[in-house]
Amino acid sequence: MAIITLTTDFGTDDPYVAAMKGVILSINPDANIVDICHTIKPQSIAQAAYILSTTYHYFPKDAIHIVVVDPGVGTERQAVLLITPHGFFLGPDNGVLSDVAEEALPELETIALTNPRFWLSPVSNTFHGRDIFAPVAAHLSLGAPPREFGDLIPTIATLPIPGPNMGEDGVLIGRVIHIDRFGNLITDIKQADLPRGRLFVEACGHIIDDLSSSYEEGEELLAIIGSSERLEVSVQNGSAARFLRAKVGDEVKVGVNKSSLKGGLV
Amino acid sequence: MAIITLTTDFGTDDPYVAAMKGVILSINPDANIVDICHTIKPQSIAQAAYILSTTYHYFPKDAIHIVVVDPGVGTERQAVLLITPHGFFLGPDNGVLSDVAEEALPELETIALTNPRFWLSPVSNTFHGRDIFAPVAAHLSLGAPPREFGDLIPTIATLPIPGPNMGEDGVLIGRVIHIDRFGNLITDIKQADLPRGRLFVEACGHIIDDLSSSYEEGEELLAIIGSSERLEVSVQNGSAARFLRAKVGDEVKVGVNKSSLKGGLV
Amino acid sequence: MAIITLTTDFGTDDPYVAAMKGVILSINPDANIVDICHTIKPQSIAQAAYILSTTYHYFPKDAIHIVVVDPGVGTERQAVLLITPHGFFLGPDNGVLSDVAEEALPELETIALTNPRFWLSPVSNTFHGRDIFAPVAAHLSLGAPPREFGDLIPTIATLPIPGPNMGEDGVLIGRVIHIDRFGNLITDIKQADLPRGRLFVEACGHIIDDLSSSYEEGEELLAIIGSSERLEVSVQNGSAARFLRAKVGDEVKVGVNKSSLKGGLV
Repeated sequence: MAIITLTTDFGTDDPYVAAMKGVILSINPDANIVDICHTIKPQSIAQAAYILSTTYHYFPKDAIHIVVVDPGVGTERQAVLLITPHGFFLGPDNGVLSDVAEEALPELETIALTNPRFWLSPVSNTFHGRDIFAPVAAHLSLGAPPREFGDLIPTIATLPIPGPNMGEDGVLIGRVIHIDRFGNLITDIKQADLPRGRLFVEACGHIIDDLSSSYEEGEELLAIIGSSERLEVSVQNGSAARFLRAKVGDEVKVGVNKSSLKGGLV
Repeated sequence: MAIITLTTDFGTDDPYVAAMKGVILSINPDANIVDICHTIKPQSIAQAAYILSTTYHYFPKDAIHIVVVDPGVGTERQAVLLITPHGFFLGPDNGVLSDVAEEALPELETIALTNPRFWLSPVSNTFHGRDIFAPVAAHLSLGAPPREFGDLIPTIATLPIPGPNMGEDGVLIGRVIHIDRFGNLITDIKQADLPRGRLFVEACGHIIDDLSSSYEEGEELLAIIGSSERLEVSVQNGSAARFLRAKVGDEVKVGVNKSSLKGGLV
Repeated sequence: MAIITLTTDFGTDDPYVAAMKGVILSINPDANIVDICHTIKPQSIAQAAYILSTTYHYFPKDAIHIVVVDPGVGTERQAVLLITPHGFFLGPDNGVLSDVAEEALPELETIALTNPRFWLSPVSNTFHGRDIFAPVAAHLSLGAPPREFGDLIPTIATLPIPGPNMGEDGVLIGRVIHIDRFGNLITDIKQADLPRGRLFVEACGHIIDDLSSSYEEGEELLAIIGSSERLEVSVQNGSAARFLRAKVGDEVKVGVNKSSLKGGLV
């Protein structure tokens, strides 16, 4: 069955997600619709990009991913389809797909959705998720050729992709980009960014003297390479966010642990 | 695949929705179950009716919609099946389906669910969603003839369907019927209700000088015909509910904008 | 279609559940994935066991149930597959499956998941839901023989299964084990535990003079055998939890109603 995923800021209390699913199933009753996330902070393009970028690799290469975080709906911003080796992506051209596009290069093809033949009629000015993205995804899942949705375009909007900086003292300076339900602080520091050697991590004024290999090893406050291959700061059976009063955007530093440095919390 | 949708006030923290899905899939393992909403305010028949009425048109005409907001479960209230040109609807006869029934007339057929052959056994007195509605929906999705579930009945319970009134001064007076996750105020004023001409909207003591055509056009506070073809009051990239301290039930007025009236907020 | 259910403490704001679904669908695109609950309190093994035990009986006997509440992920705790007459169960061997195991005896078979051929590679130390349980479930749904996942083991970890005690005065003493979205207090007292005769129930200092047969019969505060065949304390169209300021763990007592006892609230 064709897989269509949904990532939106619509929440689950309103009728919006259900309307999109109804539109998809009216065109392709056999579509297998998977909710990725509907509780993106309203209008948070960066958060939607993060959630999408940590999930889409796990889906089949022919899955169709719809992303609707779309503060500019009804204005001149384009609606696009990205064809990549990792799947098909539909969304507004507002930067929410810039991670996806960068990773797909040079095999990326981008199409501007301009052919109203595949849309609901009339198209509202406030809900392109239902009126454009859902029906286009459904037609795509039935085998409609992508070029029929519109013309190839050379480029899409990009967001600055966050990443750590190297400080003057050889200490890597990153940031918290997501706090999960367990209170884990997920940073923009990837495993490949880490210096060699025994490391220390500094977060919110606390020093962690080494990386742990599981949540139940190490001290109460610990640093670990998490499941998205990013550096995370965690508290064993607790919430690092609450313990450290941390928030998205806070700095997290990583450096090589000199023997003179005492471990533990300071 | 047969589509069965669920609209309930069960939330998603309790085992109730999953039990219904298990019952459906035990009878029809190929049913495609779609969640419309499970966070209806407990016992809010009006909210369930609103969510359902803004979504069911987007589903295939043979979809089966189960609605369980059922404060009278276990009492004399009847359980019904509505057969309409827009789909099949199962729920308690407490008014939650009155919008659906009105729209389906004169092609509506209503059946009282009285045949226990299609129910779980024993039937609890507190959970007909699991014990009656889920198994009846599953059997219906497999092709059981509707008349086997019970007898045709002539009428169902109705709720007053909210709508705006015309004031003495030619100003239309409606109400906020729903506030969505973005803080948009959705009213009971439909596009067809609007007077001709350049309009003003008054909500919570603020005057909006015209209708906008997208969330990013117009002033910070704007009025727009939303995706359900209703008048909405919105704040660009913000929450009208928070900005206006509005709540469900608040009045919203619409009139023809006289040239003498100054625009903007007052 | 093969049915795979998910019960986790991952919430629905993070990418974890979607990653598991992607892994399953990449291996078996036709799997029918059903969410049982993702809002288990973080690390609450007892709550996950309760939610699972009140739902799995309603699913087909060949359904595959994944439970991931796993504070010990990445340590020595085993990952297991339980083969029972009621379905297949995958989870960490931390007690979350002890109810399931007890009910399945003597027909229970337990396999330790040790064969990495069915896992994602590499396996993270923090997310076995995605890297072990999801792919094993997907392969199982495609017909992989259970014995290929690892060796039979004789026993699994067990949690004490809560239940009521008989007090000296012939009064049964149970506890609130779950509070649902409606504020109903669900106890560990099962219908079969109840003494014969006209009963009274005591909860949080209030006496309820008899059992009701529906939420709309009896007094405002009422006791009822709920849909999971457990004694519940409810308030008609309201919240017993709020009315009684009750919490999980509070005592609820049941005894035979002597004729001298006056009914109603005291």
